[in-house]
Amino acid sequence: MLRAIASSPINILLIAAPASWILAWMSHGSPWVFITAAASLIPLAGLIGLGTEQLARRAGPALGGFLNATFGNAAELIIAIVALGRGHVELVKASITGSIIGNLLLVLGLSFFVGGLGRRTQKFHRTSATNTSAMLFLGVVALVMPAVFDLSLYGSLSARPLAIDRLSFWSALILMGAYAGSLIYAFTAQRDPFRPTPEGQRDEPAASTGAALAVLAAATVLTTIQAELLVGAMEPALTRFGFTELFVGVIVIALIGNAAEHYSAVTAARRDEMTLAVEIAVGSSAQIALFVAPALVLYSFAVGQHMSLLFNAFEIAAIALSVLATCIVVVDGESNWVEGLQLLSVYLILALAFYFVPAVG
Amino acid sequence: MLRAIASSPINILLIAAPASWILAWMSHGSPWVFITAAASLIPLAGLIGLGTEQLARRAGPALGGFLNATFGNAAELIIAIVALGRGHVELVKASITGSIIGNLLLVLGLSFFVGGLGRRTQKFHRTSATNTSAMLFLGVVALVMPAVFDLSLYGSLSARPLAIDRLSFWSALILMGAYAGSLIYAFTAQRDPFRPTPEGQRDEPAASTGAALAVLAAATVLTTIQAELLVGAMEPALTRFGFTELFVGVIVIALIGNAAEHYSAVTAARRDEMTLAVEIAVGSSAQIALFVAPALVLYSFAVGQHMSLLFNAFEIAAIALSVLATCIVVVDGESNWVEGLQLLSVYLILALAFYFVPAVG
Amino acid sequence: MLRAIASSPINILLIAAPASWILAWMSHGSPWVFITAAASLIPLAGLIGLGTEQLARRAGPALGGFLNATFGNAAELIIAIVALGRGHVELVKASITGSIIGNLLLVLGLSFFVGGLGRRTQKFHRTSATNTSAMLFLGVVALVMPAVFDLSLYGSLSARPLAIDRLSFWSALILMGAYAGSLIYAFTAQRDPFRPTPEGQRDEPAASTGAALAVLAAATVLTTIQAELLVGAMEPALTRFGFTELFVGVIVIALIGNAAEHYSAVTAARRDEMTLAVEIAVGSSAQIALFVAPALVLYSFAVGQHMSLLFNAFEIAAIALSVLATCIVVVDGESNWVEGLQLLSVYLILALAFYFVPAVG
Repeated sequence: MLRAIASSPINILLIAAPASWILAWMSHGSPWVFITAAASLIPLAGLIGLGTEQLARRAGPALGGFLNATFGNAAELIIAIVALGRGHVELVKASITGSIIGNLLLVLGLSFFVGGLGRRTQKFHRTSATNTSAMLFLGVVALVMPAVFDLSLYGSLSARPLAIDRLSFWSALILMGAYAGSLIYAFTAQRDPFRPTPEGQRDEPAASTGAALAVLAAATVLTTIQAELLVGAMEPALTRFGFTELFVGVIVIALIGNAAEHYSAVTAARRDEMTLAVEIAVGSSAQIALFVAPALVLYSFAVGQHMSLLFNAFEIAAIALSVLATCIVVVDGESNWVEGLQLLSVYLILALAFYFVPAVG
Repeated sequence: MLRAIASSPINILLIAAPASWILAWMSHGSPWVFITAAASLIPLAGLIGLGTEQLARRAGPALGGFLNATFGNAAELIIAIVALGRGHVELVKASITGSIIGNLLLVLGLSFFVGGLGRRTQKFHRTSATNTSAMLFLGVVALVMPAVFDLSLYGSLSARPLAIDRLSFWSALILMGAYAGSLIYAFTAQRDPFRPTPEGQRDEPAASTGAALAVLAAATVLTTIQAELLVGAMEPALTRFGFTELFVGVIVIALIGNAAEHYSAVTAARRDEMTLAVEIAVGSSAQIALFVAPALVLYSFAVGQHMSLLFNAFEIAAIALSVLATCIVVVDGESNWVEGLQLLSVYLILALAFYFVPAVG
Repeated sequence: MLRAIASSPINILLIAAPASWILAWMSHGSPWVFITAAASLIPLAGLIGLGTEQLARRAGPALGGFLNATFGNAAELIIAIVALGRGHVELVKASITGSIIGNLLLVLGLSFFVGGLGRRTQKFHRTSATNTSAMLFLGVVALVMPAVFDLSLYGSLSARPLAIDRLSFWSALILMGAYAGSLIYAFTAQRDPFRPTPEGQRDEPAASTGAALAVLAAATVLTTIQAELLVGAMEPALTRFGFTELFVGVIVIALIGNAAEHYSAVTAARRDEMTLAVEIAVGSSAQIALFVAPALVLYSFAVGQHMSLLFNAFEIAAIALSVLATCIVVVDGESNWVEGLQLLSVYLILALAFYFVPAVG
């Protein structure tokens, strides 16, 4: 297991963690605290994934699949819970948006692009891709309806009546029910739709349960610390770089949380294992929409800091367009680098739009 | 034919008809009149279907197909005409919405779910499903454009200029033209795209024309009477249960009118005849969008009670999202119970949203 | 080459050019100047296409493909540049909208309809159709985001802040980058995705470079003259026929510019070469969205007459609905005349909506 940790070049970024502590201690309010905390979260998200995966292999297929499915996006979840605790509701929604579109456009786009270079086309298993796309579309419905509510009854997306909170609460329960159903189906069908394991790794000996638990615990604690640092140091960084909270949530936080998915999917695509690459990208998005987002809604209600499923018009447009673009691109079961370029272009246009949105208030 | 009527357990609900008369005579304004009238309409919708089908078999393929296609949703049409006569324009639009999304999400979802339990996947004929989905999308276009009109030119969905009436009138004619075209294609291609007959029933001897006509006439007369009772008794029921006219139209009326489709599609799915189940669900929706809705628009203009194709934002979002969800789910020609669960979840979220919409005025 | 020009019956319309000059000289302000100038542009658009194609064959596959891809919609580009020069920004946007929906609905619809008559189904190559649809969807994203911007931040589609200009400028660059990528892919994969050549014509001897250049130059000069006449004579024609600039742009100008595509696609469909027909229709739309529209945006910034990618709600709805309808129809790789009828019906409904939009101001 230590070898696995040492072999990943991305883990060099772990030295950013102590750097962020020193910077935070030396100068309160430096934008470099934000940058180093952000950098340190990239390998930590990967370590949580590694620990979960090792534990999952020891736990057997059923419990293991559940572990992978639940902790697969644990880093996003921890950062979001820390941000919620400090009242950054809009940042959390923005990071949910960013995770969904980042996985669909950036991860999938890079996979198609890098995998397709030097090859004419690559093929992947069509059925699992469209199945997961359908799950994603269910998430889109749950996000669109509160906005239709607000927009058509109150003429804007800023009115926040009680009905939207209640609609969000029940929608979150329905989404988690559908998610649970898909996990049950996956277990009975003997495959994990959200966190597939690469062919090669299946034969490797798993780490001991103790080592896996230790890595998982250490990575979780460190992630929480670094997330607190990141969210606390956000204000000076926003001022310094002229970014809005929306932009940081959609682009920066989402990039940090999905770095592990990027790495796994792109290397799989390079090896021409496109089915795996597509499943990582689309499955991780579906997991955000059907598990992480509703879990955060329910958590926010439990702690009294209400977060609804009411996203702003940019977020809804970005998510809906990303899901439709993915559906169109994966439906034929073939990819090439131009399709990757198209998805990356969609991501760039959306990122530009988020960049140009002025800070409100 | 009598045996066919007696063999369907749902026809026990016919005793709700006399019950509704007694209740209406005893206490004016009881919500139970609404409930019993609603219950009695479920078997009546089925009986109109049975009568039409028997008549259609006697009439030969061409005329028979036309009969099936025209009277297949006769119960919905009768209830809508009665409601229009009493000025409940919004109720009629809501029931059109409810029929479309109910067939796509509830009927198809239940079919996928019930059919898929205990099976890994079920296959169906992809081409006919996507063909009918394309027809449905044409209906979506006709419903979206009046709303774009109202929203972009008048800033709300409550302005109702003359242009929307005229656009609705001509759109209705175009929809019916496309519907007529698809009937002609179906007849020349020797199959009925909207009301397919199950394999087994094709060999059964048909009832005599007289018996079929008698059942059809009796069911139609009774349906009209019960529809009058239902619409007349709606007000006290709305007050009693705290429902809005929108919710009753989208959920309750639509459930009544589509009970027969539910039964046929789900039993077909259970027998693993998924092509039939998909054709019933998607075909019935397309028939509502391309025949029933435009027929009601033209009828409303004929009787001077103008109903446009201008639906409210919830209805448009619900229809558009349902059609897209269906397209994504049927495009691969495979289903499993999780896809059924997803469609049912979409239905639940939409139903919740309609439930939370407050009564206007 | 002269034989090719003489053999096309549409070139009789060239006599409308001198007719338009005489009319313009005789009576300033007659609507007939508009009509004759419009009629003369139909064969001129075809001649530019013919000249480009002949030149492309001489130039070899790489440069030739580039020529075809760049000048394939040269007539639309020239008319748009002339209109921009006279300040008709909304007319240019309307003609871009009309070219996209006209190619997708009218050209593809007519091809499916005419090709499908007397045949049960026609098959075409699914992959290239969905690839090009994905490119089109990228264009949709670029057009939707500025509108989301304007609508959600400023409450209307009439505010035009600087951010929209900047978003449009960068989006145009991204679109052209994606377009360039698809050209490179097409050249390396040895096929032209946007302007495929019919099988039969590939064996014909190409015209001399001189003759091709002469035809191209003459047609370009004449197109510019006739476009000036057309745009100049538009006002009296609008008054005479009660048309708005929006309607003329979306329906009339687009029909003129796409007449050549209509002819090629429909004749290919009649010969049952559906892959070619679909590629002409969908490819030409993608070329408008990813090359012509961004090129016009960049040109407008260069000459100081800023045109953004902010389209009005009707245009966005029309483009988005057309692209989705096309995706649904082409995804199964099969067509029949009913699908053609459906696309034509969608076009009719959209055209009606544009007709009913009142003139602003």
